[in-house]
Amino acid sequence: MYRSNTCGALRASHIGSEVVLSGWVHKLRDKGFVVWVDLRDRYGITQLVFDEDRTPKELLEQARELGRETVIQVKGEVIERASKNPNIPTGEIEVLVKELTILNKSLLPPFTIEDETDGGEDIRMKYRYLDIRRNPVKNKLIFRHKVSMEVRKYLSEQGFIDVETPYLIKSTPEGARDFLVPSRMNEGQFYALPQSPQTFKQLLMVGGLDKYFQIVKCFRDEDLRADRQPEFTQIDCEMAFVEQEDILNTFEGLTKHLLKEIKGVEIDEFPRMTFDDAMRLYGNDKPDIRFGMRFGELNAVAQHKDFNVFNSAELVVGIAVPGAAEYTRKEIDALIDWVKRPQVGAKGMVYVKCNEDGSYKSSVDKFYDQDDLAQWADVTGAKPGDLICVLSGNTNETRAQLSALRMELAERLGLRKPDEFAPLWVVDFPLLELDEETGTYHAMHHPFTSPKPGQLQLLDTNPGAVKANAYDLVLNGNEIGGGSIRIHDKQVQATMFKHLGFTPEEAKAQFGFLMDAFQYGAPPHGGIAFGLDRLVAILGGQETIRDFIAFPKNNSGRDVMIDAPAKIDEEQLKELHLKLNM
Amino acid sequence: MYRSNTCGALRASHIGSEVVLSGWVHKLRDKGFVVWVDLRDRYGITQLVFDEDRTPKELLEQARELGRETVIQVKGEVIERASKNPNIPTGEIEVLVKELTILNKSLLPPFTIEDETDGGEDIRMKYRYLDIRRNPVKNKLIFRHKVSMEVRKYLSEQGFIDVETPYLIKSTPEGARDFLVPSRMNEGQFYALPQSPQTFKQLLMVGGLDKYFQIVKCFRDEDLRADRQPEFTQIDCEMAFVEQEDILNTFEGLTKHLLKEIKGVEIDEFPRMTFDDAMRLYGNDKPDIRFGMRFGELNAVAQHKDFNVFNSAELVVGIAVPGAAEYTRKEIDALIDWVKRPQVGAKGMVYVKCNEDGSYKSSVDKFYDQDDLAQWADVTGAKPGDLICVLSGNTNETRAQLSALRMELAERLGLRKPDEFAPLWVVDFPLLELDEETGTYHAMHHPFTSPKPGQLQLLDTNPGAVKANAYDLVLNGNEIGGGSIRIHDKQVQATMFKHLGFTPEEAKAQFGFLMDAFQYGAPPHGGIAFGLDRLVAILGGQETIRDFIAFPKNNSGRDVMIDAPAKIDEEQLKELHLKLNM
Repeated sequence: MYRSNTCGALRASHIGSEVVLSGWVHKLRDKGFVVWVDLRDRYGITQLVFDEDRTPKELLEQARELGRETVIQVKGEVIERASKNPNIPTGEIEVLVKELTILNKSLLPPFTIEDETDGGEDIRMKYRYLDIRRNPVKNKLIFRHKVSMEVRKYLSEQGFIDVETPYLIKSTPEGARDFLVPSRMNEGQFYALPQSPQTFKQLLMVGGLDKYFQIVKCFRDEDLRADRQPEFTQIDCEMAFVEQEDILNTFEGLTKHLLKEIKGVEIDEFPRMTFDDAMRLYGNDKPDIRFGMRFGELNAVAQHKDFNVFNSAELVVGIAVPGAAEYTRKEIDALIDWVKRPQVGAKGMVYVKCNEDGSYKSSVDKFYDQDDLAQWADVTGAKPGDLICVLSGNTNETRAQLSALRMELAERLGLRKPDEFAPLWVVDFPLLELDEETGTYHAMHHPFTSPKPGQLQLLDTNPGAVKANAYDLVLNGNEIGGGSIRIHDKQVQATMFKHLGFTPEEAKAQFGFLMDAFQYGAPPHGGIAFGLDRLVAILGGQETIRDFIAFPKNNSGRDVMIDAPAKIDEEQLKELHLKLNM
Repeated sequence: MYRSNTCGALRASHIGSEVVLSGWVHKLRDKGFVVWVDLRDRYGITQLVFDEDRTPKELLEQARELGRETVIQVKGEVIERASKNPNIPTGEIEVLVKELTILNKSLLPPFTIEDETDGGEDIRMKYRYLDIRRNPVKNKLIFRHKVSMEVRKYLSEQGFIDVETPYLIKSTPEGARDFLVPSRMNEGQFYALPQSPQTFKQLLMVGGLDKYFQIVKCFRDEDLRADRQPEFTQIDCEMAFVEQEDILNTFEGLTKHLLKEIKGVEIDEFPRMTFDDAMRLYGNDKPDIRFGMRFGELNAVAQHKDFNVFNSAELVVGIAVPGAAEYTRKEIDALIDWVKRPQVGAKGMVYVKCNEDGSYKSSVDKFYDQDDLAQWADVTGAKPGDLICVLSGNTNETRAQLSALRMELAERLGLRKPDEFAPLWVVDFPLLELDEETGTYHAMHHPFTSPKPGQLQLLDTNPGAVKANAYDLVLNGNEIGGGSIRIHDKQVQATMFKHLGFTPEEAKAQFGFLMDAFQYGAPPHGGIAFGLDRLVAILGGQETIRDFIAFPKNNSGRDVMIDAPAKIDEEQLKELHLKLNM
């Protein structure tokens, strides 16, 4: 038996007991006549004591030599600590060691195993097993476990069935690029790893399973942007005999449950907003509504003067930045430089200072008078002391630019509070999205999303205007889940494929099994998928997902710890009927 | 709202309520003046009634035309049923339909959606979504869900943390063949899909996570034997600071919990047996101990006469088949033919009938007298009325043959009762296994398994004799779990790799990260993995796993429903820097 207790277990009530502990040497303080060792395991830290009076000399010397991260086992007596440490649960006691066994030695770790480490991202990833010993990483993994368990518990109690869908499936041209798996037994053929179990969950609904969920890995072979992973985890759900309202209610329930159980936060009813409103009011389909700074469209009150920049713009739009009227000229210039960075891409920025005395001072005073500016303040909701920032240009681009500015300013002003949670349903997404480059439409959500009732015929005349029964759940400015009511009618599905540019033959080759299934009594159905990595990070008050993943990959899709991907043997290639083509 | 209740919900207490139901037309009985429809969903069947007296004529006609598997929605009143059906929970009521909406039509299914279907395996797999509508399949999937949930609940309560390990990892030459995933971003390099998360779970122990579990898909690109799948599911577990005893106790706890919660079966303490004893007594490292028929080794009592077949054999071994003394000559000949089939491979079989009067009648009466045969009966534990079956030859082969015969006879005698559960720990497995073809040793469990304390030096002199800290959990003659205490010392691991034929360079290239990890304070650790597919099947009283998997693959590794694997575009190949080599 390696231990009678963990390093987080002992309390004053254990004083006098003989115990066996095992763990890592976290820290050692050698005062000459006494040596204290902080022994660490997953559960906590317990102080061990060796001293001249009570410890055999040899044992004391042995203790003195213990290096950091050495794995040891000790037997000893729990005693009261002279100077108690109220900051840790075991702070009232220490263990007077009588026997010490070294279970494994350790080289000096390449970075310190402390909450604040000296290790950079790269070295931490290479030695991820050491990084996981650090509380911040360890606790994030345990936090993720808790969230997963609560999700499963809640959905199971609601009658959802966890069904494992296959990982070796078929490549589909729609959507992102698939990871492919060559088949040895079926020469020249390939499996694909699922981008999501979309068609399988729909087939489970056709199969009458009624309510399905799965926490499942999904795969996308995309060029990785920061904080994206080639493999990621979804909470994947589907329900039959439901309308959009049923799904929103069910998963609002799940999200409320998580916020309550995990964060102790109770939220009443989640607000809902149409996609169009989200774009108009926040320039963004995943608005962070923890704070205001809603967009005010200024065309009507800014295009009647001789200011050509505005007059020639499709959209003039501004936000009121609370308390920022006091920004210096230098600060404002820096802000203008910020919006002009290539990542944001604005050509410039007009500003209005709303002075405390009710007067206005703007960068366009030679075009607009105080009454004009008062109207701008009215439209943007600016109060005395606020700074109005105005951008103009093409609608889509300008909204994106102002949205970026809004988020940046909120960050600077400390308005994006990690312990505040503001969920929001965004509904009525467009069914199709125009690819500006190719001039063709593709599915905004996926090709199985149902158009709104009665809008099917619009597909021929004005495809961009068709709205879908699709919805996203947004939390603190992040899309944490998205889904839709699906098409369950073979004819409608065929029409959709046609509009997405599939020939009937292509549609049959790729999705024949689904179209077939729709002929045998497919029920109305719909679902949602949550990005677990993101959800867990946001619940944990963080913006980046990497430390909530035990073994993440870097931006080149590499696991630097195990050094994968890697070259393979010629023999393996041959078995797969492949040659390199480089 | 598609329904106010499910098709399994309504009882006598609902009589008088207005309800909305949705589901599939399961069956229709048309008596002319009245039409009954069995409406089915996941939750059950509710009888709908349409009759001349109470139903508008048009509605009655519409009902009459409903085809099987049509998806409908009805509104109506719950009424008392004239002739109650005590066999179903909703048998006291029926719903008098007032409105009927056809939600989706259905073609005639290719097989009947009944508990006993007329569909063969192939057609059921092609239309798996229809097969899942059948109770036997649907219930197996729901059963699997329950088992998974109980596993997670139990392990979580025991302090295990569910950690997701990566699916895109590195190919290792050890063990079975990997499925490979070409990397687009890392030209000429490949990921591999995990055969198990073995090294990652060990690294989590090095990382101090202490107790890990995961229900995880694993992949093996092997030529598929019956009832094997290229992707399968493991309950994967690992613990730090444990000895074998701790692991056996923990997972005996899990298995007891499952047997109790899922099957209502309480089992006290699981028996344990060494690998050597299992081979000696059952000819098998996964003995079914629901019944006796233990092997009796007869060399000492059968090699003293002139029967050359026995005298030249390495092993003479028999079993007593209860009550089989009455087998006719013809039945015994059939049994002899059975053991001589190529799948079993015995050269012949000697038998002894133990007559009720205490006398013996054998096929070798000219060599052995009644006293000899009485000794055989004594060694095999045969009683009057039993039949002793004796095989002889090379030890390993003969044991395997007699084991096959034992299982076959138990099956015929109805001794393998699906509702009886007999778990068994098999311990002290050999560390290495000799590959008879190549003459080299390979790891019986895997290369990370720890030899028994003190046996490391035996590796040089008698590698086949080294026992490992490895164990299997056997349930009803199936290995449902297996694991080991791992090596946590870099030197021992290097020695193991050497004995397995790795050069130091190869070991470093493949497992350098693990060897590195062992230098930074790896704790003693060990674990176990259960085959979930098999475990669920056995708990469900079945021997085949296929119907406990929602979308299984066939014996060529194909998913016949979605038709995968499949050819891919030239463009996709090119992106992966590959050419076909066929």
